[in-house]
Amino acid sequence: MTDTWLNETLYPDWGQRFRFVRQLARVKSAFQDIAVFETDSHGRVLTLDGVVQITERDEFVYQEMLTHVPLLAHGNAKNVLIIGAGDGGVLKHVLMHKGVERAVMAEIDGEVIRLSKEFLPSIGGDAWNDPRAEVIVGDGIDYVRRAPDASFDVIIVDSTDPIGVGEVLFTDEFYQNAARILSASGLIVNQCGVPFMQADELRETSARRAQFFPHVTAYVAAVPTYVGGYMTLGWAGKDASLTQLSPEVIAKRAEAAGIAGKSEYWTPHVHVAAFWLPPYIARHLPA
Amino acid sequence: MTDTWLNETLYPDWGQRFRFVRQLARVKSAFQDIAVFETDSHGRVLTLDGVVQITERDEFVYQEMLTHVPLLAHGNAKNVLIIGAGDGGVLKHVLMHKGVERAVMAEIDGEVIRLSKEFLPSIGGDAWNDPRAEVIVGDGIDYVRRAPDASFDVIIVDSTDPIGVGEVLFTDEFYQNAARILSASGLIVNQCGVPFMQADELRETSARRAQFFPHVTAYVAAVPTYVGGYMTLGWAGKDASLTQLSPEVIAKRAEAAGIAGKSEYWTPHVHVAAFWLPPYIARHLPA
Repeated sequence: MTDTWLNETLYPDWGQRFRFVRQLARVKSAFQDIAVFETDSHGRVLTLDGVVQITERDEFVYQEMLTHVPLLAHGNAKNVLIIGAGDGGVLKHVLMHKGVERAVMAEIDGEVIRLSKEFLPSIGGDAWNDPRAEVIVGDGIDYVRRAPDASFDVIIVDSTDPIGVGEVLFTDEFYQNAARILSASGLIVNQCGVPFMQADELRETSARRAQFFPHVTAYVAAVPTYVGGYMTLGWAGKDASLTQLSPEVIAKRAEAAGIAGKSEYWTPHVHVAAFWLPPYIARHLPA
Repeated sequence: MTDTWLNETLYPDWGQRFRFVRQLARVKSAFQDIAVFETDSHGRVLTLDGVVQITERDEFVYQEMLTHVPLLAHGNAKNVLIIGAGDGGVLKHVLMHKGVERAVMAEIDGEVIRLSKEFLPSIGGDAWNDPRAEVIVGDGIDYVRRAPDASFDVIIVDSTDPIGVGEVLFTDEFYQNAARILSASGLIVNQCGVPFMQADELRETSARRAQFFPHVTAYVAAVPTYVGGYMTLGWAGKDASLTQLSPEVIAKRAEAAGIAGKSEYWTPHVHVAAFWLPPYIARHLPA
């Protein structure tokens, strides 16, 4: 029966495994090995190069925290750039915010989009057809290089870890351009791994971004299938006050944005507390 | 090489696995199957009936949150009862608090204590020999049944899930006696599992305790090897104000207790925020 277990290969000595009912798809794209599994415990599970990216059952944690936190902290985000996130979940959550006028999504691997639409349709939902959405199958690095100055309020990077295809999303050049194309109080968030297992990722990414942004920090989310305790979402912005808001302010903004009461993990209090880091995580941020 | 992987068997369809270097001990006690493994990723790992209880590398999260939160929320805990926790970690953390005059620990399985002292000596440290400690190898249920009224300020239950030997720690009779032996603003905390996977455990335990305590809630901790997102620590107390304190009050108490700056996960802010539950968890608590 060992062939019915999906063993995640992210770490050599420890990891999670899923018993799967069947493999629904397996595609070797130009960029990576993509697979979708059906499981009883977590619904459908998408892996890239053997690493779990999303499951139907717990995706809400990651999507809500990666989207609602930056958008509501900014408070007036009209133009949002999403890099990666080919499953469509971030796009869907961004477009829940009434104030968003334009959401550009650049995913390098069209096969991830195609397979997500076919096998994980609930994750993107109707977002693919929203008139405010502009979905580009192409290189996010290149898009950021060529975008006009101050053309976005928030950039959300939903990438793999800084190995494989995601590696270029963690370079100096990328962050320099990100700072350039962000508006006056703009900010960028990206996933920075699980610091209990991958502290280098948070430390190195944070140090790198501190060269180009006055305010660099991180916030946490307990995502069931990003095993190893908290994952960190890195934050680099131009306005330090955005991570210091009260639950009351955030709640008012959520009401206005039309997302109040529509979340399963995010709340105004969870939002505020996500920036209060345990010492074992905080020590990897720039002083 | 499959025999070098320890596959946790807590859930039938999903779980974590550790590559282990060697098995250090394996004992069939009168109560359970106890094993200790050496791993590169997490140091030594203790399992009971195939379920991971503690690892050297991440035990700090669980111990700090299970101990510092109730003791500092109470604010004047002199007499503390610990049930289970045979590894000694809770005892050690309780005795870090200067104000504690007496810590009684009742662990039913003497083999867990013996193996922990031998193979996981850093977890209990010198606590075993502290003059304030009274370590009983015996039945916690029975201890609680016979203890005098109002003889403890805080009860900490560090048990397995409500299966096997831990099951009797989740009964009406146990909670009724716990309420009786707690002092006026006394409280009991216990681990209530990972609600993403085991929501019944939180729901049923909370409903049960609500029969005997006016204030029932839970707080969260992201423990790396209790996989599945947040675990919940159940709280039942006589004084609802204890879970509503400010970080400033908690910080002052931590300073006085001598634990300020000695934690890797717990902080006064993490303490306060732990009671702010995501909706997917909060809905399992009594209204």
